[in-house]
Amino acid sequence: MSVSAPNPRSTPARQQLADSLRRLRAERNWSQEELAARCELDRSFVAHVERGARNISLDNVEKLANAFGVGIADLFLRRDPKGEAGTIRA
Amino acid sequence: MSVSAPNPRSTPARQQLADSLRRLRAERNWSQEELAARCELDRSFVAHVERGARNISLDNVEKLANAFGVGIADLFLRRDPKGEAGTIRA
Repeated sequence: MSVSAPNPRSTPARQQLADSLRRLRAERNWSQEELAARCELDRSFVAHVERGARNISLDNVEKLANAFGVGIADLFLRRDPKGEAGTIRA
Repeated sequence: MSVSAPNPRSTPARQQLADSLRRLRAERNWSQEELAARCELDRSFVAHVERGARNISLDNVEKLANAFGVGIADLFLRRDPKGEAGTIRA
């Protein structure tokens, strides 16, 4: 499996988180190593999460949000094609 | 420790989730048993999450959100005293 291949075990939530992490890292120009160091997580763990390949715990989602200075909700907001965040209620 | 005592191991994210679960259950008039059954989780697990005493996985957060028909972001939005949801960006 290549690094960019979708992971068959992923879920919509994992994919939303993966997309947000890649977007926020790109905005800040951080490597996976830099993000991992700021969260005190392993780089390989961050790489797996960015592929939707890991069922991450809430405590570690919180570490990632804190590293970026955003709320957890921001990591799971649906984004329209312009990149504007929003949330949808049932 | 009583059921309603704050848990010293909790985190802000766990507490936000706990508050949201209790609020959404109350809005729907669901017992912990009913929520647990809808998610295929144990009632005791749901009780621990509602006390902030468990480091729940993202896959299980997603099951809880799906049971309520809300997005994961909705479970972590900060709420003002009127109960209106909002998110704060750093």
